[in-house]
Amino acid sequence: MNILYDERLDGPLPTPDRTALLHKLSIRVPDLQILHTEEALKPYECDGLAAYRTLPLLVVLPETIEQVQRIMQTCHELNVPVVARGAGTGLSGGALPLQQGVLLVMAKFNRILEVNPQGRFARVQPGVRNLAISEASVAHGLYYAPDPSSQIACSIGGNVAENAGGVHCLKYGLTVHNLISIEIVTVEGERMTLGNDALDAPGFDLMALFTGSEGMLGIVVEVKVKLLPKPQVARVLMASFDDVEKAGLAVGSIIAAGIIPGGLEMMDNLAIRAAEDFIHAGYPVDAEAILLCELDGVESDVDEETARVREVLEKSGAIAVQIAQDEAERQRFWAGRKNAFPAVGRISPDYYCMDGTIPRRELPGVLKGIAQLSEKYGLRVANVFHAGDGNMHPLILFDADQPNGLETAEALGGEILELCVRVGGTITGEHGVGREKINQMCAQFNDDELELFHAVKAAFDPKRLLNPGKNIPTLNRCAEFGAMHIHRGELPFPELERF
Amino acid sequence: MNILYDERLDGPLPTPDRTALLHKLSIRVPDLQILHTEEALKPYECDGLAAYRTLPLLVVLPETIEQVQRIMQTCHELNVPVVARGAGTGLSGGALPLQQGVLLVMAKFNRILEVNPQGRFARVQPGVRNLAISEASVAHGLYYAPDPSSQIACSIGGNVAENAGGVHCLKYGLTVHNLISIEIVTVEGERMTLGNDALDAPGFDLMALFTGSEGMLGIVVEVKVKLLPKPQVARVLMASFDDVEKAGLAVGSIIAAGIIPGGLEMMDNLAIRAAEDFIHAGYPVDAEAILLCELDGVESDVDEETARVREVLEKSGAIAVQIAQDEAERQRFWAGRKNAFPAVGRISPDYYCMDGTIPRRELPGVLKGIAQLSEKYGLRVANVFHAGDGNMHPLILFDADQPNGLETAEALGGEILELCVRVGGTITGEHGVGREKINQMCAQFNDDELELFHAVKAAFDPKRLLNPGKNIPTLNRCAEFGAMHIHRGELPFPELERF
Repeated sequence: MNILYDERLDGPLPTPDRTALLHKLSIRVPDLQILHTEEALKPYECDGLAAYRTLPLLVVLPETIEQVQRIMQTCHELNVPVVARGAGTGLSGGALPLQQGVLLVMAKFNRILEVNPQGRFARVQPGVRNLAISEASVAHGLYYAPDPSSQIACSIGGNVAENAGGVHCLKYGLTVHNLISIEIVTVEGERMTLGNDALDAPGFDLMALFTGSEGMLGIVVEVKVKLLPKPQVARVLMASFDDVEKAGLAVGSIIAAGIIPGGLEMMDNLAIRAAEDFIHAGYPVDAEAILLCELDGVESDVDEETARVREVLEKSGAIAVQIAQDEAERQRFWAGRKNAFPAVGRISPDYYCMDGTIPRRELPGVLKGIAQLSEKYGLRVANVFHAGDGNMHPLILFDADQPNGLETAEALGGEILELCVRVGGTITGEHGVGREKINQMCAQFNDDELELFHAVKAAFDPKRLLNPGKNIPTLNRCAEFGAMHIHRGELPFPELERF
Repeated sequence: MNILYDERLDGPLPTPDRTALLHKLSIRVPDLQILHTEEALKPYECDGLAAYRTLPLLVVLPETIEQVQRIMQTCHELNVPVVARGAGTGLSGGALPLQQGVLLVMAKFNRILEVNPQGRFARVQPGVRNLAISEASVAHGLYYAPDPSSQIACSIGGNVAENAGGVHCLKYGLTVHNLISIEIVTVEGERMTLGNDALDAPGFDLMALFTGSEGMLGIVVEVKVKLLPKPQVARVLMASFDDVEKAGLAVGSIIAAGIIPGGLEMMDNLAIRAAEDFIHAGYPVDAEAILLCELDGVESDVDEETARVREVLEKSGAIAVQIAQDEAERQRFWAGRKNAFPAVGRISPDYYCMDGTIPRRELPGVLKGIAQLSEKYGLRVANVFHAGDGNMHPLILFDADQPNGLETAEALGGEILELCVRVGGTITGEHGVGREKINQMCAQFNDDELELFHAVKAAFDPKRLLNPGKNIPTLNRCAEFGAMHIHRGELPFPELERF
């Protein structure tokens, strides 16, 4: 199915006795819903990275923390790997099942346990949708800040596992910055609280370590999140540019002017046209790039910043700057951006969504590099960015029905990510490593660093039963992956000149 | 010297061959400054927690990262424990030397390597003073936000080790929130970068794990920090109260009104009088408590928030609200607060500075509890708080020359911390655990949690050579500590009613 991932490189997983497992689970975990027929397992064969599919050994759908504890105890005893799954919206295959493993689906943990306006927090179960937290808090004038584009569907447990971002994370931080504490169940079935009401808890910061660990350290069973007061005013400016690099430079100039926008997003012409055609957001379809810049806070403050941002944009060569005139227009401007992925899906049989980050100053050069790679591979690339924090989402358009369709797209994607690493960036911004980018991790980290990751993993999960084969590659994989590169006549890190 | 810490509970440390170590270091690390005479070692026998003193085996003062690597390689090979020390201002004994260990003093790493106004970061060596970073950035209108009261003297490497806070961390975050990446040397002498320019780096978040780990995971050799634009305006309100609990309630009301002040500090009458007598800050010496509330941002915004905070304070029962009329008065108001510790030092032969945190809502009840404990032990307690984030600094006044002077103060301090834990808080806010609070960690965490800490520690330092006996107690220590408590007729956690 894909050229880059080869399961054998991670070494064999134990082959569990499915019948014995089913039997033990049914005895030890009363009332647990277990799916085991092929028909029932089918809907769980992939997450949001649909190019990778595997039927799990079993699916379990616990409803209580005690059930999760007993499931983990049982699997631990029988050496059965466990993959946890939230809403399954993840784009890097972090919740891709294992043929030899149990898929632990947290969908039934869907209750909001407490919204506390005085303490400005909410306690929720991990299956609660991201947006539902804000909806439950709106009566108090509060909201939960991190807003991944999938926020209608994605769950907070998955957000913790991936340390999810969103268009507002430049100003309001990632998931980890908006958590107070999390309840987890360990691989051995112990219950534990990580984090604390205090700003700085004593001991090692295991909550920060756990957040973004992609299901490799434990199972999230409850989350206590911070709630923020809704800004009095939010205003969006849309600037059009006749040149992508000018738009890239404008991003740096806004930040350098001492303004931290609530959101600062960029789209190139291909993305603009696709979104406009789908959403009718009012985007300028002839522009080579647009920037969307949201300012929020108290009104007088926003007025002043709006004037300053407009000035910066005009000095940076914007050909037009438009301010959303009312809330409806503001929502339309954002709807175009938030629906950019499905919009691109309408103009191409398939697309492959990348997720790399780069230092902001490298934006113009990397855009040029992507254009060159697009030409080299003969595949169109639409660019959508969380520009403010240098997080890019190049969308590679391809046709999986063509010979080598996916393979070519993956190879192009791999080169884009390696370009990100070369300019000092990373292979993932907010979508995680999962299964998808396991090989690129070999480019991001050296053996010493990977060994340290594995040692930390072993501190939580010495038997390596939690989500094996994701996130942190084995040294063996990296050695083989490097060898494959050389075998094809290319070094993984040719000493290329920078763009 | 102190009743609460007993070194034997951690098991014996290896007894190194001092002569062999000296010999190897002098061969392997050319040009390394080594101190080994009693006279030369004496100045390093304690850090800011001067009640605990130990002469180290040796003091080394490296100047380059390569020297640090070779020192670590040598100590690792010879099984010699290593304690790193920054400026030695820490208040929990985190840099207290070991008789059997090398004290690695980072004072010579005192260069600012880069101030980058476009990228809004500074790269500095770990021995650079906290305030020096802001001083070097002021020409660009930038500053480094975390501002511990010791910022004139404390070093950024120590700030990383302790995850230091300060009066502005409520709004601007702790050290960990203001770091981009750190360079470390591992116990085996390997060099490694933790963190990344990207907002969310792939792999486990080892930078967050490392920050606040109190020298137990590695040695910080370079730090890349975020710089923020200096706020246009900063304004301080001072509110006086005739009742400590009313002041405590006002804190919650300010936060509940949707305002996040740049700083929100509280002092009680004893602290007010001591500070006023020392600094002549203009504090109302008859008030039972004062709140200092700083608002910063653009002028119009600050004007509006000032009016709202004044209203909240008056509604909360403030008997007077005063606004600093100019920058000089603002600096005076803060000088009183920042010098509260030395001010208390003038009115008592000795004082013991505590550092606990509690949920904000528990502030009034805990203040009452501290007053009761103060009476029980017959020792005065001055209260100074980072009220906004629930971080308390009760200062216990005592006379070490009295029989059992320190022991009584420590026992009172211990009870205050246990009170913090009982109401859902922690035993340390920003000063760290170090040597001082190692026993209270047994109250904060259970065996499963401590085991996990030790497993994480072992991932970085399997031989346990880095700062042993600090921060994370051994299970043996906690078992014995519990037993001692019971032996004295007191359970560590009597099921007391909450205040």
